[in-house]
Amino acid sequence: MTRPVPDAGAIANPATARRDPPVLLTPGPLTTAPATRQAMLRDWGSRDADFIALTRRLRARLVDLVAGADSHVCVPIQGSGTFAVEAMIGTMVPRAGRMLVLVNGAYGHRIARIGRTLGRAVETIESSEDRPLVAATLAQALARDSTVSHVVAVHCETTSGVLNPLAEIAQATAAAGRSLLIDAMSSFGAIALDSSALDFDALAASANKCLEGVPGLAFVIARRQTLSTRQGTAPSVSLDLYDQWQGFEHNGQWRFTPPTHVAAALDAALDQLDAEGGVAARYRRYADNCQRLIAGMTRLGFEPILAPNHQAPIIVTFRMPRTPGFDFARFYDALHARGYVIYPGKLTKIDSFRIGCIGAIGAGEIEGAVAAASEALNELGLERV
Amino acid sequence: MTRPVPDAGAIANPATARRDPPVLLTPGPLTTAPATRQAMLRDWGSRDADFIALTRRLRARLVDLVAGADSHVCVPIQGSGTFAVEAMIGTMVPRAGRMLVLVNGAYGHRIARIGRTLGRAVETIESSEDRPLVAATLAQALARDSTVSHVVAVHCETTSGVLNPLAEIAQATAAAGRSLLIDAMSSFGAIALDSSALDFDALAASANKCLEGVPGLAFVIARRQTLSTRQGTAPSVSLDLYDQWQGFEHNGQWRFTPPTHVAAALDAALDQLDAEGGVAARYRRYADNCQRLIAGMTRLGFEPILAPNHQAPIIVTFRMPRTPGFDFARFYDALHARGYVIYPGKLTKIDSFRIGCIGAIGAGEIEGAVAAASEALNELGLERV
Repeated sequence: MTRPVPDAGAIANPATARRDPPVLLTPGPLTTAPATRQAMLRDWGSRDADFIALTRRLRARLVDLVAGADSHVCVPIQGSGTFAVEAMIGTMVPRAGRMLVLVNGAYGHRIARIGRTLGRAVETIESSEDRPLVAATLAQALARDSTVSHVVAVHCETTSGVLNPLAEIAQATAAAGRSLLIDAMSSFGAIALDSSALDFDALAASANKCLEGVPGLAFVIARRQTLSTRQGTAPSVSLDLYDQWQGFEHNGQWRFTPPTHVAAALDAALDQLDAEGGVAARYRRYADNCQRLIAGMTRLGFEPILAPNHQAPIIVTFRMPRTPGFDFARFYDALHARGYVIYPGKLTKIDSFRIGCIGAIGAGEIEGAVAAASEALNELGLERV
Repeated sequence: MTRPVPDAGAIANPATARRDPPVLLTPGPLTTAPATRQAMLRDWGSRDADFIALTRRLRARLVDLVAGADSHVCVPIQGSGTFAVEAMIGTMVPRAGRMLVLVNGAYGHRIARIGRTLGRAVETIESSEDRPLVAATLAQALARDSTVSHVVAVHCETTSGVLNPLAEIAQATAAAGRSLLIDAMSSFGAIALDSSALDFDALAASANKCLEGVPGLAFVIARRQTLSTRQGTAPSVSLDLYDQWQGFEHNGQWRFTPPTHVAAALDAALDQLDAEGGVAARYRRYADNCQRLIAGMTRLGFEPILAPNHQAPIIVTFRMPRTPGFDFARFYDALHARGYVIYPGKLTKIDSFRIGCIGAIGAGEIEGAVAAASEALNELGLERV
């Protein structure tokens, strides 16, 4: 099944037709479909049978996206993606465990910080922000250090938009007999992950990235057998995945008040993922968005940081132009005035900004954004940078 | 300013006009106003100026509800109320601190559990679930034990619906020179709290109780001077109030993805609180709901657990009838079929069930619920219990 993707092509000059509220070209929260937001127009009793059924359906659908029903369970958690990452680290890494975090961006650094704050032993391998992680380096590190129990890796590092080689990382980790935890925040729903082909103990992701839900709910998909041994491991009540899972198993209910409206929106968003044709179809739309964006921005003189073969179709980092007369704050505001919100940069060594490719947007929105960028440059007295 | 309260009085027989979705007579999530839900129909860029302004406004409005702008700051946090309570305990109680938790219900027990899980020293004073806490007992305990640094009390214990004497508890705590932390989850917005009259270091509450927002966002209102000394205290990254506060102070932004739609709904719900006439007017509506509910249910033979002078107008606990033929599951389903969702009991020693008085509901909904309860009893072959 496929459905028509939102397209602003019917607008003669999309750049001059101001969109209010604006289109979000960010790594999430992002532009969602009207049906997703409309699902929030109903109140739910959080301990009522109707909502229990919705929770059961959500958990099953999310596990099914990694074909994990036989081996893994989905444990939703209130809050942002970072809450799920912290719940995953705190529950899945035993107190005496030792984490090796692969770091090529801010989200890798954050995982290391979470591990240390939770009192876990943390090692890191840091590598360049504009290149993918290298699995061979991991394999060597694991061969040298037998005390590492868990490898933690970010699938798509939103800092730069780089796609890390997850299959190779998983192979190196499994070959050394260690456990793999994945931050799949900005890839889940758009880049296929198959639990039968990929050996992982847990992954964390969130409703408001490539699943195109609204923010307020994240989740961990954990290997049932491992999770079942983690009673009392988490140094938190709220972020105790084991306890949260047991609650669901016991009576189908969240332990503490769930974000009912956000959960209903995610269920509606999953309907749209199915209608679009699933993860593969979503990947194709995002890849098309990404190619159009890079082509259009390159025509205007902007330069992507990443080599094309390292770029995930999630978010594109552009080098900050040094053209005299280019002022990013004015460029941002001029785009915003035309109905497009872009995103600041996060690289530590290169001045940059970012434009997202994800959300309920298609060719029309991307072409509109490029046209708006051209107009914004004109407003700055520039034809290109 | 006042606004008309939702009222189903125009329906000739409210009990037979099935409401779909049902009216939630629960302690939250609860029935919200249409305008609150409609505020979720827009997407927001979480780092965009529009949402930064919304966050600033929300924080200021919540502090203003306790007249605390000079002394306290509001730190919103993603997740349920329990997340805010855990953030409050973890950040406000130093690692070497010692908590004395006043327990007369499940939420007091939960606070003690959170303190212990976070590695804090925890003492408790436990008292009967169907009576308010006694401040004199607290004063004696503090006189005996000089090592207690923090007293933690629940304002309205939703387990029974009892209102605890917060002013007296605050006086006893201040007189002994200790710090007070309050779980104001189910009172905030309906029972006046004035930071100039009540000496507290922090209170935790949530969007989806008496403020009539939707679930997914909670908050702590903390004394600025105390919070400013708590860098590095929290044993968590996600639930570190100091760090979250610094983020807001630094650039007005949430550290990690905020529940944007839920925040917009809370802002709309606060508009409605203002329009209704503020906390005092909301209290009067809830008190009227509560009196009507108790009067109507008493006519049907149901018996409230609490003495009237101990009852907060938030949620009413009824003794489970022992009348032959009364079956709670069937009664619940019969009420649900008529469009009213009630709540299970939580008392440890007395079999009970609960009916909430809060949310965007008024006399019409309460009279409708009582009429539906009468019909539900008839369906069970009973006229009364």
